[in-house]
Amino acid sequence: MNRPTSPVETVIAAARGFLGDRLSTNASIREQHSKGEDANPPVLPDAVAFVENTEEVSKLLALCNAHGVPVTPFGAGTSLEGHVVPVRRGISLDLSRMNAVLEVNAEDMDCLIEPGVTRHQLNDYLRDQGLFFPVDPGAHCTIGGMVATRASGTNAVRYGTMREATLGLEVVLADGRVIRTGGRTRKSANGYDLTRLFVGSEGTLGVVTKIRLRLHGIPEATSAAVCQFDSLEAAVETTIMVMQAGIPVARIELADEDQMRASIAYSKLDFAPLPTLFLEFHGSPAGVQEQATAVEAIATEMGGRGFAWAEDAEARGRLWKARHDAWWAANALYPGCRGITTDVCVPISRLAEAIIGAKQDAVAAGQNTCIVGHVGDGNFHVVILFPEGDPTGLERAWDLDRAIVARGLALGGTCSGEHGIGLGKRQFLAQEHGPEVLEVMRDLKATLDPKGILNPGKLFPD
Amino acid sequence: MNRPTSPVETVIAAARGFLGDRLSTNASIREQHSKGEDANPPVLPDAVAFVENTEEVSKLLALCNAHGVPVTPFGAGTSLEGHVVPVRRGISLDLSRMNAVLEVNAEDMDCLIEPGVTRHQLNDYLRDQGLFFPVDPGAHCTIGGMVATRASGTNAVRYGTMREATLGLEVVLADGRVIRTGGRTRKSANGYDLTRLFVGSEGTLGVVTKIRLRLHGIPEATSAAVCQFDSLEAAVETTIMVMQAGIPVARIELADEDQMRASIAYSKLDFAPLPTLFLEFHGSPAGVQEQATAVEAIATEMGGRGFAWAEDAEARGRLWKARHDAWWAANALYPGCRGITTDVCVPISRLAEAIIGAKQDAVAAGQNTCIVGHVGDGNFHVVILFPEGDPTGLERAWDLDRAIVARGLALGGTCSGEHGIGLGKRQFLAQEHGPEVLEVMRDLKATLDPKGILNPGKLFPD
Repeated sequence: MNRPTSPVETVIAAARGFLGDRLSTNASIREQHSKGEDANPPVLPDAVAFVENTEEVSKLLALCNAHGVPVTPFGAGTSLEGHVVPVRRGISLDLSRMNAVLEVNAEDMDCLIEPGVTRHQLNDYLRDQGLFFPVDPGAHCTIGGMVATRASGTNAVRYGTMREATLGLEVVLADGRVIRTGGRTRKSANGYDLTRLFVGSEGTLGVVTKIRLRLHGIPEATSAAVCQFDSLEAAVETTIMVMQAGIPVARIELADEDQMRASIAYSKLDFAPLPTLFLEFHGSPAGVQEQATAVEAIATEMGGRGFAWAEDAEARGRLWKARHDAWWAANALYPGCRGITTDVCVPISRLAEAIIGAKQDAVAAGQNTCIVGHVGDGNFHVVILFPEGDPTGLERAWDLDRAIVARGLALGGTCSGEHGIGLGKRQFLAQEHGPEVLEVMRDLKATLDPKGILNPGKLFPD
Repeated sequence: MNRPTSPVETVIAAARGFLGDRLSTNASIREQHSKGEDANPPVLPDAVAFVENTEEVSKLLALCNAHGVPVTPFGAGTSLEGHVVPVRRGISLDLSRMNAVLEVNAEDMDCLIEPGVTRHQLNDYLRDQGLFFPVDPGAHCTIGGMVATRASGTNAVRYGTMREATLGLEVVLADGRVIRTGGRTRKSANGYDLTRLFVGSEGTLGVVTKIRLRLHGIPEATSAAVCQFDSLEAAVETTIMVMQAGIPVARIELADEDQMRASIAYSKLDFAPLPTLFLEFHGSPAGVQEQATAVEAIATEMGGRGFAWAEDAEARGRLWKARHDAWWAANALYPGCRGITTDVCVPISRLAEAIIGAKQDAVAAGQNTCIVGHVGDGNFHVVILFPEGDPTGLERAWDLDRAIVARGLALGGTCSGEHGIGLGKRQFLAQEHGPEVLEVMRDLKATLDPKGILNPGKLFPD
């Protein structure tokens, strides 16, 4: 028997002892765990660990910590910012097999799940109980990944993000200790808010192994509407007016004319390629009607036309599937091209400046783009398309990304509304927070992960 | 000139250099800063610093940190858990003069304030702009104190607590560094959630010097209702059914028959001394009507009677003032008595067990109590009255408090829904979170305040 010659070989040999074949060094499995959906260069992990319970995560982390071997958590691999790329190699920790729904408390509207549960899986499970989980990024992602990136989606304008949705966590710390944060109550004032510290920490402070979520009752009535505009300005200004009027829309989503072209082709939508708002209203039948009437009045005033209704669940389902497929539609628009995406979020009053400015920058740079936005939250994505495999094209795409983020920051916004920092947005973090805040974040990281084994190379600038 | 002989004397002498008369060692001022509204033994600080800006806070903390002198932040002195008692003496840091509203962005519904602003002051300021700040503890407290304790109040069931209301903070760290957390956007995924780490940290991790808050539009229509029941069970069960039906009540507050007796006497209310629910509905005129009809149907089914309406603003104002004065009313009920209060919060499905059980414990112990509750959140307060100045009476009151908390924890609840831990609830923290979580909290404290000068003796068990 060969004696292991490096720390990672030692870890692999020892982990085989309790994971068996679920610790894999197979080339194609490592390749699958070398990247997410983003354009960062892939990096192969030394091995992939398919864990099945908290104890295994704890043992593996204790082992990696003892030997200083990097661990990069992996869920569905849908990150758009390189979170899952194991830039320092080591172990890719695949949590997708931990996908049990452990508990649903219908009367308190909460549930306890494992991190590999996807949002689709959870909502399928809940439907019979009249409950739903509203946070819905576009991807078919795991809820563990959504906790890690503080994800949101189309419903956040009404129901909040993972920050509001996460009641408590089980977390394995870098050294293998297991802690339980938060609890089942709707509010608490019982010490430091560790739950919120781990939500959005991108796997750099601990590995989440259980998640308690707040759920919501399926609304008595739901209706969706689509409204098209001659100009992007009119669509954005309509959004701002709806939000400022305090109309409690459940969803208000923007697609520009390019995104509409892409989605019409990809999702076979029966709309014109014009700037478009997609809306949804939740409540009592009368309440839904009242909200819709109020929004239609504002939209009509702003020149919106063809306020089209999708009352039945199937039509609404098609509509929102098309919205969730926007990223794929954009990536399919120009043959041989793929996209990177911005994730700027600004105060709602600055949204028109931010979006129109981004569009002008794209036109000036001669770049093909598609814009979609969770505009009720002031968050929008410019998908910048470049010829796949063309490093100059990618560099020009990043240039435009930087320009759009810079304008967003100047307007009082943030570089990331929901995708997280990962690799791709690290360069903006100091500019956005200032060096003192970054120092505090680094101190917290060093406290919880003194050897720096957890998702190293992410979030912090080098 | 005498040479200072102790660290605190050194700090006092140096702080006089930039604070002048605003650094006071006057006996009556020290006495005013020796306690909150709770029954913990007062402790005199060595001096009281009335700071007026961030720079002064920064200089003072740097000085205290250099000399290892304790600093206990003080706002309005309304803590119910001993937060403001300077148990290790040193400096009481009075922030009440930092009470400027610095910025209101009506179109984005946010504002920037100093920590000494009270919630009454802010709402008076906002009213003309059609905005309001919903978080409303009973006391006439400062918003800085509300950040520190993660406070909530009667509107939290609809609008959330300080956790949701706080968008960002300026914080002075123990060594005098000034950081700015969060931002103006409604959501973000831009690194660790430092804002939420400081919210609820009870002045043990830093001193908050600016607060950015999320505001809400004053609803188009508001209506309040009062409904009385023959039994506490019926009132609590009505609450549970209203919440489980998903009716978006803005407020649903409980008072038991003893609290009603107290409030009828203290606030001259025209109701019977029976278990009572106080409700408020916010929305469009039709939406408010719909919510009220739905609640009335449930309440009537549960034997509720006299669904009394308070449509006009003045009548509603009287009602909610009486609710906010409940603590004072309870303290005035028995001559020569004062109260301590529990703050248990449980999952809504366990609320009846928790409240009825608490009442039975009180009866068995022969203790006079009044119960009020933010019952929509599963949070209730048992005010336990004991003869003022009677140590045995106080000890018996604490016994009952412990029994009520123990039941709350056994039901999946927390020892504090909104008052915080301070001195009074420290004993429950390990039981509630487990030793590993407490260890992490202590590590975070040591990272941000390595010399332990910030509000020492609070939150953590000795």
